[in-house]
Amino acid sequence: MALLFISKNDSPSDWQEALASLEPELEFKIWPDLGKPSEIEVALVWNHPAGALGLLPNLKLIQSLGAGIDHVLTDPRLPKNVPIARLVDTELTRQMVEYVVLAVLNRHRRIDELRRAQLSGDWQVIQPVPIGRSRVGLLGFGHMGQAASNALVNLGFNVTVWTRTPRSAGSLTSYHGSEGFPEVLQTSDILICLLPLTPKTHGLLNAKAFAALPAEAYVINVARGAHLVDEDLLAAIDNGHLSGAWLDVFDEEPLPPDHSFWAHPQIVMTPHLAALTVASSAATQVINNLRLVRTGKPPQNLVNPEIGY
Amino acid sequence: MALLFISKNDSPSDWQEALASLEPELEFKIWPDLGKPSEIEVALVWNHPAGALGLLPNLKLIQSLGAGIDHVLTDPRLPKNVPIARLVDTELTRQMVEYVVLAVLNRHRRIDELRRAQLSGDWQVIQPVPIGRSRVGLLGFGHMGQAASNALVNLGFNVTVWTRTPRSAGSLTSYHGSEGFPEVLQTSDILICLLPLTPKTHGLLNAKAFAALPAEAYVINVARGAHLVDEDLLAAIDNGHLSGAWLDVFDEEPLPPDHSFWAHPQIVMTPHLAALTVASSAATQVINNLRLVRTGKPPQNLVNPEIGY
Repeated sequence: MALLFISKNDSPSDWQEALASLEPELEFKIWPDLGKPSEIEVALVWNHPAGALGLLPNLKLIQSLGAGIDHVLTDPRLPKNVPIARLVDTELTRQMVEYVVLAVLNRHRRIDELRRAQLSGDWQVIQPVPIGRSRVGLLGFGHMGQAASNALVNLGFNVTVWTRTPRSAGSLTSYHGSEGFPEVLQTSDILICLLPLTPKTHGLLNAKAFAALPAEAYVINVARGAHLVDEDLLAAIDNGHLSGAWLDVFDEEPLPPDHSFWAHPQIVMTPHLAALTVASSAATQVINNLRLVRTGKPPQNLVNPEIGY
Repeated sequence: MALLFISKNDSPSDWQEALASLEPELEFKIWPDLGKPSEIEVALVWNHPAGALGLLPNLKLIQSLGAGIDHVLTDPRLPKNVPIARLVDTELTRQMVEYVVLAVLNRHRRIDELRRAQLSGDWQVIQPVPIGRSRVGLLGFGHMGQAASNALVNLGFNVTVWTRTPRSAGSLTSYHGSEGFPEVLQTSDILICLLPLTPKTHGLLNAKAFAALPAEAYVINVARGAHLVDEDLLAAIDNGHLSGAWLDVFDEEPLPPDHSFWAHPQIVMTPHLAALTVASSAATQVINNLRLVRTGKPPQNLVNPEIGY
């Protein structure tokens, strides 16, 4: 039997090696070389070409190479009735925690202003704000959101959570749904987007949301570029209401060369690397899921296409 | 009775208010206005003028406004037999933890290279290194060192500790003394200096130490400028052995305008603000210490002038 690998972002050789060490008899095919399409049991995918998965008559599992699943569900020719799994991996989560903590601390300690002062030769002391007074709003509370929230709370940050549906957030204040959205915004000096991209969260970070944030709030987007309305963010920074943003994801990636984010002094941008899947860590989950679906069981981290994650 | 406040860095009004709320009858004097020198029981000091404390015949306590004590002990006319206390404060420690975690994550995730890529319009993905492979060496394991180490270990960093004298560091690998110094250096991809400044630690971060670090190591100094030999650091960065440095403290502060650190692309510098004392948090300790010395007991966080901290 065979696995079909479709990704321009991940290393096929890393995956081939990691999977072979766990299940040597599983053939490893790299798109567009399908071999015998009928032998392919599992597709391991990131941004596959629309329709590609419909060529596989015996497909038992569509496994995302990352935590997000929007890149799978937007395929209009996606085969029905094949279970789809997201990747939930310790290394991936840990990377996201590192990245989010870094971006939050960078804003909390006003490092961008201090770096500008350094460049101007200006010895400008900025008194640290007590950490509890940098109120963090976290949109999304899945595996990554929960881990990021734990790390921030351990450091002393005051974290408020927002989710689509009601959800327990332990001792943290939490809001949900569209009626709770303005509530989380009004106490978010630092707003982090870690939501899945669905029709309901598309464009959620827009002018109306920014207007509801406190003065000088800061926006961190580590989810998907399409959560954010770029022009609205630029306007809110340029009119002084927001102090800046830290962005890892963009509507079009790579970000086009003429986009205003590149040179904006109040925007830090990184090229979609907050959390990159590590094959050697994540391969076990792929093989486990394959074994589950072979025996007719649902895979771990099964996606519900109706709600989009 | 009275307290004498001597500092150009701290706010006298914040301290006056915080102390008055705890002990309203304590008179608050600001150097050089001594009032009746015989009434002064406690001097609350940061970089006091040499000899100033010798003017106070009934001084019972010299209380540092910060964690460091080198600024007191270097006074050749320091009165003998007056107990000296360092400040160990939750807020101060928390600020240091924030700052150290930020500087370490910034290096671990190669943010400076990514920012340079952003400025050049270059979509350059840098694959994150598994966190355990960024080996952190921590020089000093007092209150701040222990708290910083806990936070780094919680995030997944591999931390090795070095202290002057043998000291338990729990489950962490630790070295001590001059024979242990090369040992900690050889596994420190990221080296953090959190040592007290004493004659034995003066100039410890020098060419010989840098040569013992692994290739592309990174140096974070949040202790005292005099721990570091500036020219040796610049040479080690410029010849490519070190990848850069993050510095909060300098031999001369403010850093002179013509110093090479200001404009160095591989050096981040901040104006000695990693941990700034918050009067409202630290005042309790000052009053408690005053009450202890009034009854002939030693203050908390008593300094041993022989070893220098």
